[in-house]
Amino acid sequence: MIEEGDRVLLVGNGRTYFVRAGNGDLSTDLGILDLGQLTGTTPGDQITSHRGSSFTIRIPRPADFFAHARRSGAPMLPKDIGLVIGYTGMNHRDTVLDAGTGSGIAAIYFGGIAARVDTYEQRPDFARLAAANILDAGLENVEVIPADVLLANGKYDVVHFDLSITPAHVEHAHTLLNPGGYLACYTPFLEHLFAVLDTAQGLFEEVQAHECIEREMTRSPRGTRPSTRICHTGYITIARK
Amino acid sequence: MIEEGDRVLLVGNGRTYFVRAGNGDLSTDLGILDLGQLTGTTPGDQITSHRGSSFTIRIPRPADFFAHARRSGAPMLPKDIGLVIGYTGMNHRDTVLDAGTGSGIAAIYFGGIAARVDTYEQRPDFARLAAANILDAGLENVEVIPADVLLANGKYDVVHFDLSITPAHVEHAHTLLNPGGYLACYTPFLEHLFAVLDTAQGLFEEVQAHECIEREMTRSPRGTRPSTRICHTGYITIARK
Amino acid sequence: MIEEGDRVLLVGNGRTYFVRAGNGDLSTDLGILDLGQLTGTTPGDQITSHRGSSFTIRIPRPADFFAHARRSGAPMLPKDIGLVIGYTGMNHRDTVLDAGTGSGIAAIYFGGIAARVDTYEQRPDFARLAAANILDAGLENVEVIPADVLLANGKYDVVHFDLSITPAHVEHAHTLLNPGGYLACYTPFLEHLFAVLDTAQGLFEEVQAHECIEREMTRSPRGTRPSTRICHTGYITIARK
Amino acid sequence: MIEEGDRVLLVGNGRTYFVRAGNGDLSTDLGILDLGQLTGTTPGDQITSHRGSSFTIRIPRPADFFAHARRSGAPMLPKDIGLVIGYTGMNHRDTVLDAGTGSGIAAIYFGGIAARVDTYEQRPDFARLAAANILDAGLENVEVIPADVLLANGKYDVVHFDLSITPAHVEHAHTLLNPGGYLACYTPFLEHLFAVLDTAQGLFEEVQAHECIEREMTRSPRGTRPSTRICHTGYITIARK
Repeated sequence: MIEEGDRVLLVGNGRTYFVRAGNGDLSTDLGILDLGQLTGTTPGDQITSHRGSSFTIRIPRPADFFAHARRSGAPMLPKDIGLVIGYTGMNHRDTVLDAGTGSGIAAIYFGGIAARVDTYEQRPDFARLAAANILDAGLENVEVIPADVLLANGKYDVVHFDLSITPAHVEHAHTLLNPGGYLACYTPFLEHLFAVLDTAQGLFEEVQAHECIEREMTRSPRGTRPSTRICHTGYITIARK
Repeated sequence: MIEEGDRVLLVGNGRTYFVRAGNGDLSTDLGILDLGQLTGTTPGDQITSHRGSSFTIRIPRPADFFAHARRSGAPMLPKDIGLVIGYTGMNHRDTVLDAGTGSGIAAIYFGGIAARVDTYEQRPDFARLAAANILDAGLENVEVIPADVLLANGKYDVVHFDLSITPAHVEHAHTLLNPGGYLACYTPFLEHLFAVLDTAQGLFEEVQAHECIEREMTRSPRGTRPSTRICHTGYITIARK
Repeated sequence: MIEEGDRVLLVGNGRTYFVRAGNGDLSTDLGILDLGQLTGTTPGDQITSHRGSSFTIRIPRPADFFAHARRSGAPMLPKDIGLVIGYTGMNHRDTVLDAGTGSGIAAIYFGGIAARVDTYEQRPDFARLAAANILDAGLENVEVIPADVLLANGKYDVVHFDLSITPAHVEHAHTLLNPGGYLACYTPFLEHLFAVLDTAQGLFEEVQAHECIEREMTRSPRGTRPSTRICHTGYITIARK
Repeated sequence: MIEEGDRVLLVGNGRTYFVRAGNGDLSTDLGILDLGQLTGTTPGDQITSHRGSSFTIRIPRPADFFAHARRSGAPMLPKDIGLVIGYTGMNHRDTVLDAGTGSGIAAIYFGGIAARVDTYEQRPDFARLAAANILDAGLENVEVIPADVLLANGKYDVVHFDLSITPAHVEHAHTLLNPGGYLACYTPFLEHLFAVLDTAQGLFEEVQAHECIEREMTRSPRGTRPSTRICHTGYITIARK
């Protein structure tokens, strides 16, 4: 049941609104919605605008936070977060360390999977925004720690870095990992990839660097072809202790 | 604590053995290991061969099942399973339907994340093998159903197909999904991709087909470059209800 | 020596102008240039604007026609034209048939290499524009034929198609080729690729379909990485008689 | 008309033989061919083995030299040679400098297009092999110079390097190029790409580095898909003076 303050998606007429149950109105081109109606509803229920248009209520999923949550910068794409999960086999038994948190999107994905996630973010304003996003996602197993990840201690099954990486980060990750655990580093630039590989190759058991070129396939009456645009996002290095 | 019959990884001298705690011996080039020693140990402990070599005990992770479990065919790669997880935002609240099970590797990944996984496999021999692999992975929330997925009913948040797909599969998935839920179809061939797109585009809210070209980056004293081999695996279509 | 009416590039201050020697002026932000000065000059010479800025004279190369010539549609990119040349080994001994001509850019590339090029274009307005571009390129071995290529006869070493292809085109190309000669088909869509392959595989000795994904690598003080955009252009099928 | 000593392709029963007209026999699984018969024939003619099998006579094209000529190492692929031709717009008016020659395959392609090609190869044994291959290709406009290309002088429209490149090579190329001319550097490794870019970006007007990922598309009764293997070959940097 949806409670006051919960994040909710309203879906109607091909559009999606990311709102909060409680006081206030939402103006849409299909009329005004009283968001107070949302409290006490169940996902799948509908609410109606003053002009009689219906909107379906949904609980946002991680990809919805990627699409709609407030951002402090460019978060990793769902495909790259998914690759980290796939390469590391992240699962409900895992304790995960994540840094830098940024907008908290990766932490929301990981928090929906792992037993516990500690996510480090040095910038206090980013950390506050991420904590708000994570709270909206209803996750109680994710802690945002407003500090340099080089100060982290404890033991983790997966360490994930999306930050300006240095050899010290790779070395520190090695001390934080349980045996058999994985370090995953996301680096947009080749120079950072090189730094990660040069440090990890001497330290970890298995090290692999992946580039994943993703294309959308489009199909229309004209024909089928790869979309004319493809994005390079970053290299993902996976190192197992 | 490891119990008799549990699957265990033994790691030593750069090699990994996928064994079972209990009666019996393992012959390695570093000597013979008595697997009865494993019962009662804790991951991270070591056992010793008759020649005095040490092996570290680990609980296998999903990627270890991909690497070591018995197979009934070619399972999806961890990267593709990860992409399905990333695109759908699969998480601990989800009820997942998976078909065809094959060796059960995708079901092992999904079972480590979701609340419940029902996985359909028509071939009884494949279903039995997958059930054994899933049991070895210690998952109690995954049920292998030895039947045609077109007979499935119930409601799911994510439906995942890795089988010889037909329009009927896409249509049936639509009836099985909760609103806002995702269908993910993995298809190696363009003709199957076309069949999925043609059916899904009229039925689902959002449909995207992805191709993901993965390369390994190699770095050695000679220099850094993409690995000379890259694999096409399959297209992944994601359709949201 | 440059004669009146010749196409000339004027290069100065980081900008390039594609002009014609003869009567008339060119207004630039560095002053006005009297294009009558160009007649009788030699590539590498300079001319001066009324404000005293110097511009260097160059003979345009094929890539300059791609960049500056008038267009009737989207021409093939230099990389794809180059792939056709590379795969077929086009050379000064070859007689080449090209269709559809479009703006004539591929014909300009081929005319700079082969002994003779016949290029077929059904639309009379496109054929006239292409003939003007080819004249500007100073090529006397290229003939633009304003007709359907299915009416072509004669014998060729290379046949190149960039048009809405049908099985009849592939079959007709086979009759036009010398033994050992090559058909090269450029097709943006998979459906056209399939049509080409299905016809060619029974008819030609060797058939290969290529996809070439091109990326630009960018290097700046921030780092080096693939450009974030990549273009799909088309598939190139090469069939040898 | 084919003369004694000419290189000839004999094509029969799905196989291709790269032979020389003149004294001697060729043993095939379809019988023995007397190569003395070839002198005086015309491409397209047939000769017959002692068992009565027919073979068609062809003049080898550049791609045939790539496939059949003796090699001193791994030559550039036809696709990469084609990209160099396409990006530079190489044509019959051009004077081309090529280094290192290697087996001479790129020089054979370029010699079939340009007015003149000077190709530098430091290793005397490689230079001799390349000169023999170029002679076999019937090219009289290509000179193999057994020396370090840093000693080259003269003026060229296109300079092409496929060697262990240093900043000195890029700087020397700049002095050898006519205004508007192109330097094309082929480099398999990122470190060499970086060296080329860092030197060229300050020196040339326009600099672009390309990566071209090529895949073969396979089509069979099972379906159509990209070939499961793709090759990274090298980066191609194009710099215009």
